[in-house]
Amino acid sequence: MDLAAKKTVLRMFTYGLHAISVRDGDRVNAFTANWITQVAFEPPMIALAVQNAGASIDPLRESGRFAVSVFGTGQRELAGHFGRPSARTPDKLAIAAWHLSPVGLPILDEALGWLECSVRGSLPAGDHTVFVAEVVEAGVLREDQPLSMAETGFRYYG
Amino acid sequence: MDLAAKKTVLRMFTYGLHAISVRDGDRVNAFTANWITQVAFEPPMIALAVQNAGASIDPLRESGRFAVSVFGTGQRELAGHFGRPSARTPDKLAIAAWHLSPVGLPILDEALGWLECSVRGSLPAGDHTVFVAEVVEAGVLREDQPLSMAETGFRYYG
Repeated sequence: MDLAAKKTVLRMFTYGLHAISVRDGDRVNAFTANWITQVAFEPPMIALAVQNAGASIDPLRESGRFAVSVFGTGQRELAGHFGRPSARTPDKLAIAAWHLSPVGLPILDEALGWLECSVRGSLPAGDHTVFVAEVVEAGVLREDQPLSMAETGFRYYG
Repeated sequence: MDLAAKKTVLRMFTYGLHAISVRDGDRVNAFTANWITQVAFEPPMIALAVQNAGASIDPLRESGRFAVSVFGTGQRELAGHFGRPSARTPDKLAIAAWHLSPVGLPILDEALGWLECSVRGSLPAGDHTVFVAEVVEAGVLREDQPLSMAETGFRYYG
């Protein structure tokens, strides 16, 4: 395989940015994800790829639940903050305003909107795991354009 | 669930547009997809959601292979053409210029670049199926901005 071409073409893919939040007992955490897509209309489902080496995969797998907060344009710094490894920034939610969703998952107050998701299946995918989840609740917070990877210049792909 | 909020928030997700091509013996076909994302760096993998009711899912499942051609900005009409159901437009590839990838999958000549993918697993997801596939070959065709769902105004989400 032409590795340079592989990287270049994978960087042609278009992404938004989202904060994924999880709960482990009394502890909550959130991380930034761009590898997420809707995958079904009926029922409404999404797929999310999560790092096997990250701090949030075990809480997500064990609870079977996560929430998605959609970042809006101009929120590059906030998305970058939640993209830091939890090992170096243990309480990422400390610097952000958030509230709890109906089932108790953190939703960023400044997001455009949020989804609560219930995991229905997972597949191993190399250094990540793909979770397929049903959207079980949703809320709109404000109207604006979403934050795109192109706007941020972040490079979590390729 | 607040169904209007669910639709609004799912439409906050950011997508590009891609032609997915498949082969069934001597027959080749292609369809437009936005529900696609990278899901792993090592090995490089992507996930793709495919309609259970569409003409391409059986060839994709049986061959275990598909190719991705990334649409560029300005190619709304071409993306719309490949988004039509095969039942009404049986030979969608007849109106486009294309060539065969190394393993014999159609690549659109006017795409920005292409990937050949080998299916490694699948998960049912309501009215679609999620395929997780390894990128096994890639090629760059030209440099431009990708076509986004926002540019097209298409609504395959929500």
